[in-house]
Amino acid sequence: MSDELRADGRTPAQLRPVTIERGWSKQAEGSALISFGDTRVLCTASFTNGVPRWMAGQGKGWVTAEYSMLPRATNDRSDREAVKGRIGGRTHEISRLIGRSLRAVVDFKALGENTIVLDCDVLQADGGTRTASITGAYVALADALVWGRERGFIGKKAQPLKDSVSAISVGIVRGEPMLDLAYVEDSRAETDMNVVVTGSGKFIEVQGTAEGEPFDREELNALLDLALLGNLELADIQRTVLAVGAEG
Amino acid sequence: MSDELRADGRTPAQLRPVTIERGWSKQAEGSALISFGDTRVLCTASFTNGVPRWMAGQGKGWVTAEYSMLPRATNDRSDREAVKGRIGGRTHEISRLIGRSLRAVVDFKALGENTIVLDCDVLQADGGTRTASITGAYVALADALVWGRERGFIGKKAQPLKDSVSAISVGIVRGEPMLDLAYVEDSRAETDMNVVVTGSGKFIEVQGTAEGEPFDREELNALLDLALLGNLELADIQRTVLAVGAEG
Amino acid sequence: MSDELRADGRTPAQLRPVTIERGWSKQAEGSALISFGDTRVLCTASFTNGVPRWMAGQGKGWVTAEYSMLPRATNDRSDREAVKGRIGGRTHEISRLIGRSLRAVVDFKALGENTIVLDCDVLQADGGTRTASITGAYVALADALVWGRERGFIGKKAQPLKDSVSAISVGIVRGEPMLDLAYVEDSRAETDMNVVVTGSGKFIEVQGTAEGEPFDREELNALLDLALLGNLELADIQRTVLAVGAEG
Amino acid sequence: MSDELRADGRTPAQLRPVTIERGWSKQAEGSALISFGDTRVLCTASFTNGVPRWMAGQGKGWVTAEYSMLPRATNDRSDREAVKGRIGGRTHEISRLIGRSLRAVVDFKALGENTIVLDCDVLQADGGTRTASITGAYVALADALVWGRERGFIGKKAQPLKDSVSAISVGIVRGEPMLDLAYVEDSRAETDMNVVVTGSGKFIEVQGTAEGEPFDREELNALLDLALLGNLELADIQRTVLAVGAEG
Amino acid sequence: MSDELRADGRTPAQLRPVTIERGWSKQAEGSALISFGDTRVLCTASFTNGVPRWMAGQGKGWVTAEYSMLPRATNDRSDREAVKGRIGGRTHEISRLIGRSLRAVVDFKALGENTIVLDCDVLQADGGTRTASITGAYVALADALVWGRERGFIGKKAQPLKDSVSAISVGIVRGEPMLDLAYVEDSRAETDMNVVVTGSGKFIEVQGTAEGEPFDREELNALLDLALLGNLELADIQRTVLAVGAEG
Amino acid sequence: MSDELRADGRTPAQLRPVTIERGWSKQAEGSALISFGDTRVLCTASFTNGVPRWMAGQGKGWVTAEYSMLPRATNDRSDREAVKGRIGGRTHEISRLIGRSLRAVVDFKALGENTIVLDCDVLQADGGTRTASITGAYVALADALVWGRERGFIGKKAQPLKDSVSAISVGIVRGEPMLDLAYVEDSRAETDMNVVVTGSGKFIEVQGTAEGEPFDREELNALLDLALLGNLELADIQRTVLAVGAEG
Repeated sequence: MSDELRADGRTPAQLRPVTIERGWSKQAEGSALISFGDTRVLCTASFTNGVPRWMAGQGKGWVTAEYSMLPRATNDRSDREAVKGRIGGRTHEISRLIGRSLRAVVDFKALGENTIVLDCDVLQADGGTRTASITGAYVALADALVWGRERGFIGKKAQPLKDSVSAISVGIVRGEPMLDLAYVEDSRAETDMNVVVTGSGKFIEVQGTAEGEPFDREELNALLDLALLGNLELADIQRTVLAVGAEG
Repeated sequence: MSDELRADGRTPAQLRPVTIERGWSKQAEGSALISFGDTRVLCTASFTNGVPRWMAGQGKGWVTAEYSMLPRATNDRSDREAVKGRIGGRTHEISRLIGRSLRAVVDFKALGENTIVLDCDVLQADGGTRTASITGAYVALADALVWGRERGFIGKKAQPLKDSVSAISVGIVRGEPMLDLAYVEDSRAETDMNVVVTGSGKFIEVQGTAEGEPFDREELNALLDLALLGNLELADIQRTVLAVGAEG
Repeated sequence: MSDELRADGRTPAQLRPVTIERGWSKQAEGSALISFGDTRVLCTASFTNGVPRWMAGQGKGWVTAEYSMLPRATNDRSDREAVKGRIGGRTHEISRLIGRSLRAVVDFKALGENTIVLDCDVLQADGGTRTASITGAYVALADALVWGRERGFIGKKAQPLKDSVSAISVGIVRGEPMLDLAYVEDSRAETDMNVVVTGSGKFIEVQGTAEGEPFDREELNALLDLALLGNLELADIQRTVLAVGAEG
Repeated sequence: MSDELRADGRTPAQLRPVTIERGWSKQAEGSALISFGDTRVLCTASFTNGVPRWMAGQGKGWVTAEYSMLPRATNDRSDREAVKGRIGGRTHEISRLIGRSLRAVVDFKALGENTIVLDCDVLQADGGTRTASITGAYVALADALVWGRERGFIGKKAQPLKDSVSAISVGIVRGEPMLDLAYVEDSRAETDMNVVVTGSGKFIEVQGTAEGEPFDREELNALLDLALLGNLELADIQRTVLAVGAEG
Repeated sequence: MSDELRADGRTPAQLRPVTIERGWSKQAEGSALISFGDTRVLCTASFTNGVPRWMAGQGKGWVTAEYSMLPRATNDRSDREAVKGRIGGRTHEISRLIGRSLRAVVDFKALGENTIVLDCDVLQADGGTRTASITGAYVALADALVWGRERGFIGKKAQPLKDSVSAISVGIVRGEPMLDLAYVEDSRAETDMNVVVTGSGKFIEVQGTAEGEPFDREELNALLDLALLGNLELADIQRTVLAVGAEG
Repeated sequence: MSDELRADGRTPAQLRPVTIERGWSKQAEGSALISFGDTRVLCTASFTNGVPRWMAGQGKGWVTAEYSMLPRATNDRSDREAVKGRIGGRTHEISRLIGRSLRAVVDFKALGENTIVLDCDVLQADGGTRTASITGAYVALADALVWGRERGFIGKKAQPLKDSVSAISVGIVRGEPMLDLAYVEDSRAETDMNVVVTGSGKFIEVQGTAEGEPFDREELNALLDLALLGNLELADIQRTVLAVGAEG
């Protein structure tokens, strides 16, 4: 891997500065304002005791997610989906990805008949909004589960979280595999991949797309290597953020 | 007016702490994250050179606004309007109010054929989201106009702003007129009024509603007095915030 | 106040001719075809025994309203909202205003678990459609309540109406406060205000908007004076219309 | 045909009282408030000089129609289609029928590049709303064409109307063919047919439906005979109504 | 009737080649891929035990239908209605026609509390898609009823089908009545009529429209004669197709 | 890899029978009815000379795709998206995937200013509908390009296709990697992956999802190996099908 710096001075295998403001919202049962560089996403977790009617009586819970972007999160203002009256394909796709990713680390029996809705609202976008959403939503989810346990909605010994989960993008830019693409990099990437990984290093989701040239097996492997490294770092950051006050 | 303190310790004529983070967004031409206590609204101003086709060729600009609330801005999560596929009456009404209020202080000839869209997204709601939106949107608008002038889209000597504008809520709670109602006060108010005022103390909009008992002329006058005082303070805060870097 | 006549020969403080055809519809439990000059609104009240599920079991009723304009009520034909697939902001806003205004004079305990829907359909528009709607809807509502009492859905001694309600527009046209603006006046008004008042002269709603120049306290007071006078007259007309057959 | 009277005392071959208030609307270029008994439809014709872009330059005009029912036109209130966000199949079907029927008597070359929109809004419904709509829309259309000619949008010698058009329902009720079904009859009819006929007695549209038992050729013929008679009467009424002031 | 051949070599009273592939779909309880010449419609019948809540407890079933066209069934691709977000008037109208036509031959008491949905999806369109849909849907319906009887949802001796049903188009092309119009003929027809007939030769629906000149009684009679003949043939084909395996 | 047979008797690395009926539709410029076992998708390619306005003047073409399922393609009938008035997330996601996959093998400069819309309508679904769609759409696209060249819309020497493209699903079922999952296998798979590959064996898209347990690097590699083999076979089939008549 080359050591040449990127536009923002990073090496190819370097994450942008990651910050997680846990408990940003006073209203939600769990919340996190996460930044991957200039990308900022407000993740809230809404805990409801009970499940949708079609799931009732099975002793299992449910987790779902919604993703959205403020109209001026991007450099050019886009129309609100509420104004257009329909949700676009991209929004749907990312909402589903976030939901699947978080559900993969939840034990629904242990969660009991409770529902958690994760809202990921992009306040500012500079690439990697879906990966930041997944990574931040995990922190919000963890806090909402603590909230639910404290109020007796979740059993004292139940372990609803089987693992942690984070996500990062990787891509091939000018022939070189790179970690955590910022918007300018993403728009020039030949291949773009989002990789969702558990804290223990297993894959939940691998989504790679050739934007320009198709990619070969070797390139795929190099990207997966990078993504595993990046997610290792993110899992560490999540652990550190969640450790605060956990003993109390 | 009684001196009895309110739930948050304020006197009847006291505003909640107001903060305005100017330039919060890197993407927008103007932006402000405004707080009225726990109410937090991200206001962005998007400047576009040119006007909608039906206005072209008249040498005049246009200003419009959109208001929205994140689903978990409130204590109970509400469905996204984009998911429901339609914008609710309340959202429409507030968007229109913000637009009218800001247009009232803009000289469209001086603005020239430029369009500014003000997006007010409520990140956290605790009463007064529409008044915070108007007050914050003015700051975002002012900065977007500076941006437009610097790039030559607005004439050097043009004065697109005729005045400043701010807004505050007032209401009668347990028989007593109060300024800047927080959510718990608002939900118990017998009468609720939103008053939009220029920096020079004239009315742009007066919207008073009897939620419980109808109100008489005397009560109306007391509420208007309070609202004028509150807006005087807000105009001062706006002036202070906008003074920073204005000389440079 | 000047004595100069207006386009239609009225003095500034004069209402247009008001007519109310009570019981216009054979189908509705209450109805009124109301005219403010050339503005004509068909108001119907639909009485349903029972309330929406979320209100059941509280012994209280509900009143709601919907406003709409026929596509060719105006001088230029506008597209139907049903065809556009969404209700516009203005329609929403007025529907909500009518609903709030009528609810303000209803005692929901006395109404019992009954629901009344007020439909205000503008057949011809010449300014003041929302004020005519409120004024006419009151007559339709009163008749629907009589209907409900006759069928035993409302208790014999229950008094669901706490007061009457009417509404009128006022505005400043060429510097002069005027009552009940016709369309040509409304479109030129610097300030436009709709005032909803009970029969006993208290305010239910005050909505004043500066269309051109902001207005000061003195102008606001002059407009409120006019509006109170106009509503006094409307309350008289409503009383007269409803007196017919009331003894029988 | 039996001489037994119907619920409202009519003979099988008798129309309900038909009234046409021509020029009911001050705003529209042509208008008629038509009644077939208790069925009342407000028909307006909106004349626009010019045609939709896809028709421009061919020297031909266009006529289109929209049908709608006020929510409380019927005995039970139905939801507004604008509120539901979509137009129902029945509304679409009738709008298309009205449009086709009126276009069948218009010479588009003679009309020139002008567009006429016919709005038929049912204020009160008691069966036969679509046939009343067609019959009333013809009167509104005729007046709009006069308006267009007077303003020079239609050539002085052009004859845009090739014929008149009216419509009536017929049906088999308890085995007997009947003309102009009221709602109670319509809901019990075994067969229901709407027949649109020109003033010269030719068919524009025949729509017969077996609601209960299928019908045979003989019954079909009896219904067509009745319908032709009914339309003859309607054509007379239209002629009389339109004669007023035509010489002037 | 002239013996002159049509574009595809048919005589005026000749159907296009009709084929019915019964049981085309492995998933549906009944299905038929029907062709009228190049028009191909996939008809499926979905059998559900039970009825919508508003019908429950009456011991009666229900049959409904939905019609749709693939976007490239026609010569020019049309937008999908799902993408446009609303179903067009034509689609609604045809879906309703198919539903009414099939219901006319069903005895809902004998069907019992079961629901059948008929989906008619046009894979390729060359005129007559609605008549092919009705004719094919009957075959799918018949098979779904067999399926329901075999599983005990329909009583052993119950006869839910009172008759068979088929449909054909007729029209006047260059002055001559013709059977089963292909697209090129349909688009030039002066009069276009769809006739739905039972196997025993009675009318369920007659829908005739003058596209060009209005038509007289004689032409109407000639068209009905042709349509009855065509439907006689279709009923034969249906009978033959359904006879296969019926004994087994 | 185990040699144990699957429910349908296949070995883990065996495709279901694949058939491609080229030119199924008479209307479309290119078409293919493709089957992967009981999964049947009708793919049509609509060729339009010209591009959307925002692309005009750049000398480049565009390819887009829409995917949909007939309501009774599946074992239980699902509501039509056109009836629901909105396209679901899954449909959006697959439409976008098909579009991206096909665009990856097109040289837009060589295509010239032409637009091709690929419609993939699932007539019968038994797993693998998106992979069958991509594989069949390629054949339809190839034929549409021949059509465009024959009519001179594409240059004689232009090579708009850079490669072929096909897709196949792979998954881990009861611990074992398997190729081309049928519906019953897919619904039990722990991991599900769709792999889009060029004829020359490079990746265009890799989408792997852990439905149950997260998967490790070794499992990922085994799945990719299988997918490459399956796509090699599909590319052969495409080549054979397209060879017919290609010399003529």
